[in-house]
Amino acid sequence: MRIARVDIDGLPTWGVVTNGGAVELIDGPLRAWAPALTADFGSKIPLTGRRVDAEAVTFLMPVEPGAKVVAAGATYAKHVVGLGLKMPEKPAAFLKPYESLIDPYGEIVYPPLTSQLDYEVELVVVLGSPVRAGDPGTPGILGYCVGNDVSARDLQFGGSVTGMDIFSAKGLDDTSAIGPWIVTRDEIGDDHPDLELTLTVDGEVRQQDRTSALVWGPGELVEYVAQRSRLAPGDVLFTGTPSGVAHEDGRYLERGQVVEATVEKLGTLRNTVR
Amino acid sequence: MRIARVDIDGLPTWGVVTNGGAVELIDGPLRAWAPALTADFGSKIPLTGRRVDAEAVTFLMPVEPGAKVVAAGATYAKHVVGLGLKMPEKPAAFLKPYESLIDPYGEIVYPPLTSQLDYEVELVVVLGSPVRAGDPGTPGILGYCVGNDVSARDLQFGGSVTGMDIFSAKGLDDTSAIGPWIVTRDEIGDDHPDLELTLTVDGEVRQQDRTSALVWGPGELVEYVAQRSRLAPGDVLFTGTPSGVAHEDGRYLERGQVVEATVEKLGTLRNTVR
Repeated sequence: MRIARVDIDGLPTWGVVTNGGAVELIDGPLRAWAPALTADFGSKIPLTGRRVDAEAVTFLMPVEPGAKVVAAGATYAKHVVGLGLKMPEKPAAFLKPYESLIDPYGEIVYPPLTSQLDYEVELVVVLGSPVRAGDPGTPGILGYCVGNDVSARDLQFGGSVTGMDIFSAKGLDDTSAIGPWIVTRDEIGDDHPDLELTLTVDGEVRQQDRTSALVWGPGELVEYVAQRSRLAPGDVLFTGTPSGVAHEDGRYLERGQVVEATVEKLGTLRNTVR
Repeated sequence: MRIARVDIDGLPTWGVVTNGGAVELIDGPLRAWAPALTADFGSKIPLTGRRVDAEAVTFLMPVEPGAKVVAAGATYAKHVVGLGLKMPEKPAAFLKPYESLIDPYGEIVYPPLTSQLDYEVELVVVLGSPVRAGDPGTPGILGYCVGNDVSARDLQFGGSVTGMDIFSAKGLDDTSAIGPWIVTRDEIGDDHPDLELTLTVDGEVRQQDRTSALVWGPGELVEYVAQRSRLAPGDVLFTGTPSGVAHEDGRYLERGQVVEATVEKLGTLRNTVR
């Protein structure tokens, strides 16, 4: 099942995207219906009975305001080496502000503080039920979507008392696309997924790998985060990016370029750099 | 004016704490009334007309779920040197998960992942109106409260691909007290505040300094953050801690200890380590 968040008369509304090209609107916020669905993907989701044409609506980020946005880093060995770093024994995690996210077809606002804007295609986990320290991770996963964890490399490696300046590099307003919808876990399976990730800039392939190269699977990453900070329905977890980012060859994003981030079975984000 | 968030029949409710020991309840969430108050501290706040005895209610963290919690680090020179680090030319900022916060008199839950739990008394800024990149910081400040940015030092300095592992060190569930209420900016003034900060463990003074020793004032720190990530009413900003933390002499927090964090004019957080 594909679950999108769409704009209905200015109000963000969840809906099921049908194969026939319609969006069947869901009643209520994610926390109201996601736990039951995550526990049993065969259960009924509360529909309003109203349906709209998928071509005629604007798709929004499938994340409600106030959700916790966590990202795991250093999860693909080749990417870590590509950045000149050593592969760690455990994942790294950090928080992104909600305001750093943009809609699946929204504009990437080039931030004035950086001149090294980079892309990162990622598999993103969406939580459907609470996960606390010690809980297994996979049963809490509602589904997956695509993310582009846009990063300012000059700020990331510019020197900070904390090491990398993650807040400045990964937290900039209106940069990181997410969506276009959530594909529920039952369609992907509970095992470590094996999906192709691709990122293109103006049609040229820059990143291409498979999620099977993730050193830690989505369930393990959820457990790692929840061991520290409990997760709730609607929270999202970026799972890290493979090699091929611009920082490796210096071909950073430029204004006017079109970035497309795709994960097999999940869809494509298409964003222009403004 | 002191503005607290209190528990009324299980519902978090904002209220004005009077000098006579009452709490006059406010109508609506912070975002509904804070912008007008922040623009003019002489304006009327919407009261429900109901008042309760301050002695009889539970004071909650003065932060609503979904608020962004930002912390600035390396803002007091002596603390930075005390941790064995070099004073940076600009502040460092990071995000704390909302779930890391506890109520002003709540219990600090000793996290199983650490054996070096530390305290950090801080002046905390509460935003009352939106602040975006380029906006002046001070006019967006509703007021101030006290924070204790509890930190797991073994996790912070335990080695991470990002440098310090801030997420693990500063993000642990149910550790960092905030409150006991917001003292509005008109009572503190618009200049860099000069308030004494004190932290005691079982009555013994561990930290003592003045906010005038902050290298960057609250308004400047708000501007630094907003340059990267826009701030909204209700968002909070921890402004960093002075020297005297346990990491300097190895006297970390132990279960059963009582930690009191006080900022002059703002009040005292009192928390037992469970």
